[in-house]
Amino acid sequence: MSAPIYNRVALIGLGLIAGSMAHAMRAGNLAGEIVGTARSAETRAIAAEIGLVDRVTDTAAKAVQGADLVVLAVPVGAMGPVMEEIAPHLAPGATLTDVGSVKQAVIEAVAPHVPDGVHFVPSHPLAGTEYSGPRSGFATLFRNRWWILVPNGADAAATDRLAGLFRAMGANVDEMEADHHDLVLAVTSHTPHLIAYTMVGVADDLRRVTDSEVIKYSAAGFRDFTRIAASDPTMWRDVFLTNREATLEILGRFTEELFALQRAIRTGDGAHLHEYFTHTRAIRRGIIEAGQDTEAPDFGRSALSQGKDTAS
Amino acid sequence: MSAPIYNRVALIGLGLIAGSMAHAMRAGNLAGEIVGTARSAETRAIAAEIGLVDRVTDTAAKAVQGADLVVLAVPVGAMGPVMEEIAPHLAPGATLTDVGSVKQAVIEAVAPHVPDGVHFVPSHPLAGTEYSGPRSGFATLFRNRWWILVPNGADAAATDRLAGLFRAMGANVDEMEADHHDLVLAVTSHTPHLIAYTMVGVADDLRRVTDSEVIKYSAAGFRDFTRIAASDPTMWRDVFLTNREATLEILGRFTEELFALQRAIRTGDGAHLHEYFTHTRAIRRGIIEAGQDTEAPDFGRSALSQGKDTAS
Repeated sequence: MSAPIYNRVALIGLGLIAGSMAHAMRAGNLAGEIVGTARSAETRAIAAEIGLVDRVTDTAAKAVQGADLVVLAVPVGAMGPVMEEIAPHLAPGATLTDVGSVKQAVIEAVAPHVPDGVHFVPSHPLAGTEYSGPRSGFATLFRNRWWILVPNGADAAATDRLAGLFRAMGANVDEMEADHHDLVLAVTSHTPHLIAYTMVGVADDLRRVTDSEVIKYSAAGFRDFTRIAASDPTMWRDVFLTNREATLEILGRFTEELFALQRAIRTGDGAHLHEYFTHTRAIRRGIIEAGQDTEAPDFGRSALSQGKDTAS
Repeated sequence: MSAPIYNRVALIGLGLIAGSMAHAMRAGNLAGEIVGTARSAETRAIAAEIGLVDRVTDTAAKAVQGADLVVLAVPVGAMGPVMEEIAPHLAPGATLTDVGSVKQAVIEAVAPHVPDGVHFVPSHPLAGTEYSGPRSGFATLFRNRWWILVPNGADAAATDRLAGLFRAMGANVDEMEADHHDLVLAVTSHTPHLIAYTMVGVADDLRRVTDSEVIKYSAAGFRDFTRIAASDPTMWRDVFLTNREATLEILGRFTEELFALQRAIRTGDGAHLHEYFTHTRAIRRGIIEAGQDTEAPDFGRSALSQGKDTAS
């Protein structure tokens, strides 16, 4: 086993991403010591109880002391305040990163507070499940997923070292500009989430179809939406508030397309519908070929009964 | 092993549902003989080559001769024409069912052609994958899924026998009125499918984000949409054309809700977003408790590498 990449890693926030990083860094001996903290006393207590990290501190300021890598793993809206708290306590030469789903807003909130000599390399792992909290992490969450770096002019050596950590946890690393990241994610993640939340809300609100019917007959289609719509509410609130422009742009395109399909249904234009649905099949094929999913059918029927260990 | 429930079952159409019925009936010794046909010569040739059924006929009229159960497993828009073809050849006392995703339109198209003495019991298995064609079926597709019967005044003994077949294939059987079925499915399946198709189309259409980027970074959210949007285009065209009223009603509710969330994003109303997202989590919990899915996280990361045999 090779030497650790960082001597001391401070995880600010102990949810799904930070927890999975802790598991992955331990599995690969990637950090000499892992220190963690969270705003919630309950989260800190659980993390200490299950030994998620080597040491739990009660403040972020304490957590970052002497750390050569600091990871901001809190909801996007909390990044700025947390940064203000830790800024005076960061070690000279330390690398600072975040794992937020939005990059422009995080950079605007964090960068002004970064002290000279500290290397801020924003990042975003495209990985997650619908679970959250200190018990939800697992070591293989990042395996074969993309981890996007937004160096934004950061020191090349610090950026390379951080990329090495992410690769050692199993991720593929890519670089992107902040504004392009936010647009790509608005398409591939943020707008789909908003749509899924909306559809689940509509189903619940409909008086003539009971909740129990919706739940009972959810096999085809709706079930996948509820999975998406079960994700952490605070995280997603902050995503939409901070990636507002891109999300609203994609939503506008979406409703435009939806109205065209709606009109085709109303007028009975079967040719338009068939052509549209045929086209979307090809995109799915591309995703399978890109290795981001398997061909195994798991839509519309029971998923395997599996624990996290076997699933991951 | 018990005696077969039907002496001869005729499958009209040899896609995912009929193919899975053939596998399941064989696995359970539920039919004395299984006869199948399809409109496409290629489909018939594949079915014969892989031995999907005991005997392949080149016309639906030939397939139904002497059958005590006839299953219409063609797209909803093809049900009427197929029924006209087979009506003169149905055996007296036979049971006739269909597996269409829409029930009012199928009943309107099929019922007028049903001869006296033939028992028409419409049905709909809430099961499927994103695959189609004669090679896509597997024996456990219906296990622990709902199979809805819409007896519509049919003979009780014939209905019970058919329900027995579906249960023997692993399904849970429920009865419903045709119009209520169509509304419930518009909520739980049809509208979610249209929305997924739309989102995938938008992603493909956006000039500033390339297709390869969409595919590469599809892990969170979008991937599940593409899976849904890969379903059979002809089947889905027919669903939307024949369940028009209910789909348009639910779409109207959906856009209303979406516009409210869009406004909350535009005005920065985080409380509204958080409350909405928290509420939708509870529905997901209900689905897991209802046994229609597992708690295993499989959202936003690689699914298991698994073949159909182990997955099913």
